[in-house]
Amino acid sequence: MFNMLALSHKDTEKLLDMKTVIEKVETAYKLKASKNAALWPLIFHEFEPGKADMDIKSGYLTDANIFGLKLVSWYGENSNKNISQLIGTVMVFDIHTGSPKAILSAEHITCMRTGAAGAIGVKYLAKNDSKTLMMVGTGNQAAYQIAATLMVMPKIEKVYLYNSVNQNDAERFKDTITERLNTEFLNYTDDIIVNEIKEKFNVTFEVVTDIEKSTGESDIIITATPSRKAMIKKEWVKPGTHFSCVGSDMSGKQEIDEQLFSDARIFTDDITQSISVGESEKAVKTGIISSDDIISEIGQVINKTVNGRLTDNDITIFDSTGIALQDLITANYAITRAKEMDIGTPFIL
Amino acid sequence: MFNMLALSHKDTEKLLDMKTVIEKVETAYKLKASKNAALWPLIFHEFEPGKADMDIKSGYLTDANIFGLKLVSWYGENSNKNISQLIGTVMVFDIHTGSPKAILSAEHITCMRTGAAGAIGVKYLAKNDSKTLMMVGTGNQAAYQIAATLMVMPKIEKVYLYNSVNQNDAERFKDTITERLNTEFLNYTDDIIVNEIKEKFNVTFEVVTDIEKSTGESDIIITATPSRKAMIKKEWVKPGTHFSCVGSDMSGKQEIDEQLFSDARIFTDDITQSISVGESEKAVKTGIISSDDIISEIGQVINKTVNGRLTDNDITIFDSTGIALQDLITANYAITRAKEMDIGTPFIL
Repeated sequence: MFNMLALSHKDTEKLLDMKTVIEKVETAYKLKASKNAALWPLIFHEFEPGKADMDIKSGYLTDANIFGLKLVSWYGENSNKNISQLIGTVMVFDIHTGSPKAILSAEHITCMRTGAAGAIGVKYLAKNDSKTLMMVGTGNQAAYQIAATLMVMPKIEKVYLYNSVNQNDAERFKDTITERLNTEFLNYTDDIIVNEIKEKFNVTFEVVTDIEKSTGESDIIITATPSRKAMIKKEWVKPGTHFSCVGSDMSGKQEIDEQLFSDARIFTDDITQSISVGESEKAVKTGIISSDDIISEIGQVINKTVNGRLTDNDITIFDSTGIALQDLITANYAITRAKEMDIGTPFIL
Repeated sequence: MFNMLALSHKDTEKLLDMKTVIEKVETAYKLKASKNAALWPLIFHEFEPGKADMDIKSGYLTDANIFGLKLVSWYGENSNKNISQLIGTVMVFDIHTGSPKAILSAEHITCMRTGAAGAIGVKYLAKNDSKTLMMVGTGNQAAYQIAATLMVMPKIEKVYLYNSVNQNDAERFKDTITERLNTEFLNYTDDIIVNEIKEKFNVTFEVVTDIEKSTGESDIIITATPSRKAMIKKEWVKPGTHFSCVGSDMSGKQEIDEQLFSDARIFTDDITQSISVGESEKAVKTGIISSDDIISEIGQVINKTVNGRLTDNDITIFDSTGIALQDLITANYAITRAKEMDIGTPFIL
């Protein structure tokens, strides 16, 4: 008999704040880089190609005392049934006894840890004095990427918003983003923290349509789209630009020109996964780089065992494919907070 | 938001009866044989070799409308902490939407589906007029194997009990088994069924120590031990004997003489798994048989696409390694019953 905890989507919204999730995801990357955490092989199955699939991502974090898994299903036709297309569940286990601890809705956890990932790439690789961020993609992830990045980069003044498919989406996003940042991402009880973050969120948002021009004006570019072809050409990019690419998580996806990889400093969350399903896939498959040209996992930069950016002119790329360790460490923090705050549904298994 | 159900060990004890579990596990085998169900790759990790490990077994059953997984951890030192050494959790998902349905304690489910497996091997491969069953191993699984086998083989009159390590364990088991069968395995509301099964449970139990002699007197031999060397020699076995070997689920385990495989009719639950971790492993690795000598999976015998036993003199072997489909179909039945009987803990995810 085990005392378990269930945390719903609504529960995790109350429990997680972006500042802490960034810290936790940094820790997960560091533990992986120092071999205190590892991934197990990905299980992927297509029930109907292009219509329904599922994957199981799993692994362990010794120093965080946990192991576990996230199962994500994608069913394109769910929208006709009033069910989310993307459904995720996380299970967390105690690494010292093998006992189950909790089951959690993965939806909000995934949004938060993915936002944190993009921002961690920026924090450790972009120029410290970066002033202009371009957000490519204005879908579900955009607000999380922007919130997290503004928290870690206090000198940003301007955020360009670009949607390659639908400019109206970008306009609608612009109309609500300031309000969203100041409601969804300010769940802190400490007024000093709230005011500090409000100050960081006080930036100008601008919808851009001339992607060539806005690329040349951006210090940081985050891509979070389902794109299958490059939206940004190498020749548009100014020296010193940082890219966090979070959209590619499946073979065939691509957001930026593979030629950018030829002389960029490239980092990733998991080298094997980046080459097979990440933004690095095309550059490696077309022979522009070999896997050895990926400098290291981001955890080694955070650990200070590898240098990130060397000069103000470097192009840096963080290829974030998404790993189970991000979900597990974030879920485990939610569990700890839930017990302190008496949130969630306890049950016996 | 998903309406989920948690079923504890105690809940599953109330919900599952062996007669139905046998039917369900037969269905799982049949679906697998007709390609309406399949396993995904096994994930296995040793945290500390010989002390702590975990595995994730997963798969789907299209016609049962489910997919899912079972995570089992084995922590040898848990007994010092008053926690089970073996801990299991099952998660079941709806194959039409990818939504999570329930989380269940896997302990009782595993006991029941493993008992059912051994008995299904007997039902489809042993001689119909078999009178003597020998149970090798008197640990946790023995009662489940005996209960299930007596249910499907009404002509059995005598059950030999053999424990290769500790005869006292076998004696203690004998003292309680009749009582256990008539309490733990009679959870039916229909008196006709209860009386029918009581009649089948009305057999003689006898502890044996001369394994050579008792082997020669047995029509059916079920092995359910953690043994790593053969306990039964080929020359002791009389023509027509059936073996259900359920103990081997890890490389290096073995219960019966590998020479028995040279002219037996061999069936399994999953050919790949049997060769790598099952009772067939040694016979294949030592070259006594090749994997092509395994006639088929048991599901094809149940489906009547392959003949099981051909003559009364055949030696038949069912190598049952244990597959996720058994757990998932049994868990799904428990979920259905739980809703009818209003058992379990509902929660929102």
